[in-house]
Amino acid sequence: MNEIITARGSLLIAGVTIDGATVDIAVDEKGTIAAIGKDAKKTIDADIVIDGSDRIAVPGLVNTHTHAAMSLLRGYADDMILQDWLSQKIWPLEAHLTGDDVYAGTRFACLEMIKSGTVAFNDMYFFMDRAAAAVDDMGMRATLAYGFIDLGMEEKREAEIKATETLVAHVRSLDNPRIRVAVGPHSVYTVSPEGLRWCAEYAAEQEIGIHVHLSETEKEVVDCVARFGKRPAYLLDDCGCLTPRTVAAHCCWLDEAECRLLAERGVTASHNPASNMKLAVNRAMPYHWLKAAGANVSLGTDGCSSNNNLDLMEEMKFAALLQKFAWNSPTLLPAGEAIEMATAAGARALGTGPGTLTVGAPADIVLLDARAVCNTPLFHADSNAVYACNGGAVMTVLCQGRVLMHEREVPGEEEIVREAAAAARSLVDRAQDSS
Amino acid sequence: MNEIITARGSLLIAGVTIDGATVDIAVDEKGTIAAIGKDAKKTIDADIVIDGSDRIAVPGLVNTHTHAAMSLLRGYADDMILQDWLSQKIWPLEAHLTGDDVYAGTRFACLEMIKSGTVAFNDMYFFMDRAAAAVDDMGMRATLAYGFIDLGMEEKREAEIKATETLVAHVRSLDNPRIRVAVGPHSVYTVSPEGLRWCAEYAAEQEIGIHVHLSETEKEVVDCVARFGKRPAYLLDDCGCLTPRTVAAHCCWLDEAECRLLAERGVTASHNPASNMKLAVNRAMPYHWLKAAGANVSLGTDGCSSNNNLDLMEEMKFAALLQKFAWNSPTLLPAGEAIEMATAAGARALGTGPGTLTVGAPADIVLLDARAVCNTPLFHADSNAVYACNGGAVMTVLCQGRVLMHEREVPGEEEIVREAAAAARSLVDRAQDSS
Repeated sequence: MNEIITARGSLLIAGVTIDGATVDIAVDEKGTIAAIGKDAKKTIDADIVIDGSDRIAVPGLVNTHTHAAMSLLRGYADDMILQDWLSQKIWPLEAHLTGDDVYAGTRFACLEMIKSGTVAFNDMYFFMDRAAAAVDDMGMRATLAYGFIDLGMEEKREAEIKATETLVAHVRSLDNPRIRVAVGPHSVYTVSPEGLRWCAEYAAEQEIGIHVHLSETEKEVVDCVARFGKRPAYLLDDCGCLTPRTVAAHCCWLDEAECRLLAERGVTASHNPASNMKLAVNRAMPYHWLKAAGANVSLGTDGCSSNNNLDLMEEMKFAALLQKFAWNSPTLLPAGEAIEMATAAGARALGTGPGTLTVGAPADIVLLDARAVCNTPLFHADSNAVYACNGGAVMTVLCQGRVLMHEREVPGEEEIVREAAAAARSLVDRAQDSS
Repeated sequence: MNEIITARGSLLIAGVTIDGATVDIAVDEKGTIAAIGKDAKKTIDADIVIDGSDRIAVPGLVNTHTHAAMSLLRGYADDMILQDWLSQKIWPLEAHLTGDDVYAGTRFACLEMIKSGTVAFNDMYFFMDRAAAAVDDMGMRATLAYGFIDLGMEEKREAEIKATETLVAHVRSLDNPRIRVAVGPHSVYTVSPEGLRWCAEYAAEQEIGIHVHLSETEKEVVDCVARFGKRPAYLLDDCGCLTPRTVAAHCCWLDEAECRLLAERGVTASHNPASNMKLAVNRAMPYHWLKAAGANVSLGTDGCSSNNNLDLMEEMKFAALLQKFAWNSPTLLPAGEAIEMATAAGARALGTGPGTLTVGAPADIVLLDARAVCNTPLFHADSNAVYACNGGAVMTVLCQGRVLMHEREVPGEEEIVREAAAAARSLVDRAQDSS
């Protein structure tokens, strides 16, 4: 294995390109960026030196909406009507999921995210204690939420409350600054107002985040209005779920007033363009309204079964192109804003720092190959990163100063892939045996 | 260099996966698939053996609409209104293009296409004799058209006719079965009916293809109706340009009758989803109408300045997702049809064989990494290829039985990238000096 991956200590990235200039980046033992510039090397006595020539440094990417362990369901079923896909394919398989599956699937998802430049993610699923173990092993950051679904049933709600409290206690007990916990009320169509209210109060009391699906489909909006007399964002707001600690995924069918409401409450809207296109939700997130209102808009891949990958570099292209196409404006969401979405906006959402390459920020750093085909010619690095490259251009990934990948090598990759394949096969076998 | 790349002769791909079965593929000295199956190895005494374990074989991809040398303009200007982008950025730069630039840019484009699994492409640009030299050097197949633009001026038309005739004579003189020539009337808004008629007659006389842009924007349709009293497809038909040898790019704004007309004439419609989204053309190709009419629908990346890459694996995902989103149907353009678009439909369009892995077909073969993250788990290879993978999963590429890439190694890659970067820099410098 490359010794740069196994070494620990302070670190210097020498002669790397940032915004067209060649600089050094010094990272101290705590994993904080200590200096950036031509003289940065003088500020530390680096234990590790990474050659930054032919490399472009960008902040580590942040995936603000996924269901990581669903990597095991990649390609299991596609090209179906949403309801058939869920009821005939996804749910019957998920009924057989074990904690071991979630560990294998989350570890595999972390591998995929690291290989495409992601350092932190916002996750919602089940067996999240095992997801935490996987994140810990892989050295990434994550905010983990148990998917809270009460379907309006009090008994189920009590069980979900317990599951949520158990996860929060577990993650707190880990005392790992890279791993955070959030409350995960699934959506207004799967959680009762009572459940939503409990989630909001508990999140406030615990000072933790809220991770929720919002206005993914038109049906969600229509049903919500029919049932509660108000649109989903207003229902969430009534229940106290719209806070600066809230990440609302999808947000396709928000109207303009709801966009203003999200901005006023400090909510982050997570754009998930590939999933929205694949599932044909028939409307792209109104980014222009959210932007005009000053909302924080971040980027997410959604789970592997509705994307079908976790490559946030690719997702930036889908975001920038979908916004242009859906809202009929070739100038909407230019490359620089797409990168901001995938970095700083995500970091703000998850509270993992500024999400920029600045002194004092956590050293969450991605090095892209400046000699890659997709980076040639190199007129505008932002344009190439968004429109031409995918995760394959990512060469090195640092999270809090620790090297998770170097020259595309991630420790244990073969074993992680093999175990994910075995877990997926076993899951399908068990589901078929029982049917 | 890997000896499998330099070796010449008959070839065996041993133990490779096709449609879930493990088989051998035997390729004879002429580059034709001689046998496929468990006993294929017995049919030839192979000079070269490629280990197919952990590899999935698919037909080589065919890119049916691009402007290859525009790889030099990748990322030069983005996120602009189409007319500003062309008049302020692209055209001023193109005015300084030389034959050497086109050679460097096309060779670089070939490298990018090979690295993402493309074996053949349909090109339209200038200095196409130099493009032919690049294609020859790189071992790919291409159909080359000079972009014919008369703007209604007779003098210009005469010059375009001469340029077209010169290119046709040049390509014929090469006598290279991998390199074909076509007539390239740019579009109904840049070529007069007289010019279109000449193109159609000359193509018929020479028995060569026609490569044209069709109904990319609403403005094109509106202007055509105002000027000629008919929609673009009907104007092209009146001029004789709709033939089984015709590839019409974009086709976003076709109405249902035009889709039937294209099908009746045997025209191939080339879908270019990423370009259409990036330039915000406001309507996706009506694939459902073309499919219902029985038209041949293929896939293309368009040029690098409006995509911004030539990765047809990525383009399959854009096609499958854009169709679902734009026409509000999660079942439209399933994975298998996206692969058909990128392989067999393209091969039919360019006359390069069936575009399938079948005995007697040219050995245009791509080997994908079955152990890649994007191919794990491997429930459905088609789904993974379209929705999860990009060109990075392509390990080996054969064109007419010749190995163009093996284990991601392409001969001369570093030099080709370096020369493209230098050519792009020099082009911009010359343009700036003259402004």
